[in-house]
Amino acid sequence: MIIIGEKINGSIPSVAKAIAARDADFLINLAKKQEEAGATFIDVCASVDPEIEFETLKWMVEVIQDNIDTPLCIDSPNADMLLDIIPICKKPGLFNSVSMEGTKVDHVFPKIADTKWECFALLSDDKGIPKTAADRIRVFENLMAKAKEYGIAPNRLHIDPLVEMLCTSENGIETVVEVITYIKEHYPTIHISGAISNISFNLPARKLINMGFVTLAMNAGMDSGIFDPTDKTLLGIIYATEALLGLDDFCMEYITAYREERIAPPAVKKA
Amino acid sequence: MIIIGEKINGSIPSVAKAIAARDADFLINLAKKQEEAGATFIDVCASVDPEIEFETLKWMVEVIQDNIDTPLCIDSPNADMLLDIIPICKKPGLFNSVSMEGTKVDHVFPKIADTKWECFALLSDDKGIPKTAADRIRVFENLMAKAKEYGIAPNRLHIDPLVEMLCTSENGIETVVEVITYIKEHYPTIHISGAISNISFNLPARKLINMGFVTLAMNAGMDSGIFDPTDKTLLGIIYATEALLGLDDFCMEYITAYREERIAPPAVKKA
Repeated sequence: MIIIGEKINGSIPSVAKAIAARDADFLINLAKKQEEAGATFIDVCASVDPEIEFETLKWMVEVIQDNIDTPLCIDSPNADMLLDIIPICKKPGLFNSVSMEGTKVDHVFPKIADTKWECFALLSDDKGIPKTAADRIRVFENLMAKAKEYGIAPNRLHIDPLVEMLCTSENGIETVVEVITYIKEHYPTIHISGAISNISFNLPARKLINMGFVTLAMNAGMDSGIFDPTDKTLLGIIYATEALLGLDDFCMEYITAYREERIAPPAVKKA
Repeated sequence: MIIIGEKINGSIPSVAKAIAARDADFLINLAKKQEEAGATFIDVCASVDPEIEFETLKWMVEVIQDNIDTPLCIDSPNADMLLDIIPICKKPGLFNSVSMEGTKVDHVFPKIADTKWECFALLSDDKGIPKTAADRIRVFENLMAKAKEYGIAPNRLHIDPLVEMLCTSENGIETVVEVITYIKEHYPTIHISGAISNISFNLPARKLINMGFVTLAMNAGMDSGIFDPTDKTLLGIIYATEALLGLDDFCMEYITAYREERIAPPAVKKA
C-alpha cells in the first residue's frame, strides 16, 4: 500500500493554529511521526485564504523537507498555484491534484511530463462528480486520453474514484468497486487511491466503517490511500488485508510491522 | 449475518472448569450474554472424554435451554452421539456437524430430514481436507447429492469451506474465496459459515487478521459464522461490512447496533 500521510492539513484546527503561528516544530514532529510509521508521501495542505496560500504552502514545504527524507504530496484545490510550488521542492513527489474540471490537466500534465512527479487525479469534470459507474468510467477514459497525449505513464497516476458517504448510498460501495475493478482491469499499473475516511461521514463508530471499506477497496484494487499512518489499527487492517489477499508471502511484512510496533490490534471490548 | 456464539466450549479452560464443577450459573451467564449480543444460535460443546460426553452435553443443553430462548448449536465430532442429544432439545437448532467422512451424512441426514433442524457441514472427506478449490468443490457436490437424496433443502445447510491458517498459506485466502464464490453461485440460498478465528492461528495481533478475513469472506458470500458476539469490535466490522456491501439500507441496522451498544469502534492507538 502506498501511504499518503494526511496529518499536515490546515483544515485540522491544531495544524491551522501551528501554521498561523509559523510553529515549524509542530509540523516537523507530525512529519517525522508519519515517516516513522512508514508513510510513502507526506501530504502538505495549507487550507488558508487563496491570497496567502502560496507563501504559506511554500513555508510549510521548506520547513518539512529540510527535516525529513520522505517525499511530499503537495495538496491544494488550486492546481496553478501548486505548479509554482514544484520548483521549491527538493525532490519529486505527488501532485495533489488534477481532475477533468476546467483546464487543470492541460496546465499540469505538460509541466510534469518530463519530471518524476506523480499525480493524484479525481474522477470529476465540469459537471461535478458523475453519479453512475459508467459516467465515472467515461471521465476516467477522458483523463487517460489526456495522460497519453502529454506522455504521463499510468504508473505515475493515483486515481481517486471519489468515494461518497455510505450513509446516503443506496447500494453500499458497489459503484466505487465497479469503477476500481474496471480501471485495474484496463490499466494494471495505475494506482487507485482516495481519502479512506470520507466513506464514514455522518456515521457513528467511523473507524469500523473505514476499516471494512479499506479491506473491500483493496480487494477491488486500491493500492494507495490518504490516511493517518500513525493509527496502528487502521494500518494494521491494511497489512492484514495484504496478507489475506496473498500479497505478503507467509505474512512476513505483517509480522515485521507488528514487531516494529507500527500496527496493533484493537483493544478487546466485551459486553 | 447468522451468529453462532462460540463461548460455551469445553476447550476453553474456564468453561472446562465450570463443566467439571457442574457450575450451571457460569454457563447460563455466558449464554445470556451471547443472546443479548444478538446470537442466532448458542454453540454448546462439551470437549470431554468420549465416555462422558453424552451425559455432559445433555446436562449442558438442559441447563442452558431452561434459561434462554435462543436455539442451540449442538457441537461434537461424534455425530452419532449428537443424534441422541436432539430429543433432549426443546426446539430445533443447528446440528454441528457432518462432513463427507465415513457414514456421517447417511446417519444424520435421514434423522433430521423431516425436522426443522439446520445442519453444519464441513467440506472434508475420508481423504481429509482437500487442498485445491476444485477438490473441495467436488466434496461439496458429493455432499449436495446426499442432501438431495435425503430431502435436506440447501437453506438448511451451513457449509464450512474449511479455512486454513493464513501463516502457512501461499495464496492468502484465494482458495476459500473461490470455493465460497462457486457455492453461492450454484446454491444462492445455502449458508456459508466457519469459525472466524481459525484464519489467524500462529499470527500476532490475531484480531486484525480475523477482521480483515470476515470482511473478505462476507464479500465472497459468507453469511454465517462461529465467533464471540460479545466482541464489540468484531461484531462491529460485521455490521460495517453489511452496510458497505449494500445489505443494510442507509446503515439503519449498523446505527441501531451502535445505539444499543452491541458494537463499538477500536480504541484509538496512536504512534
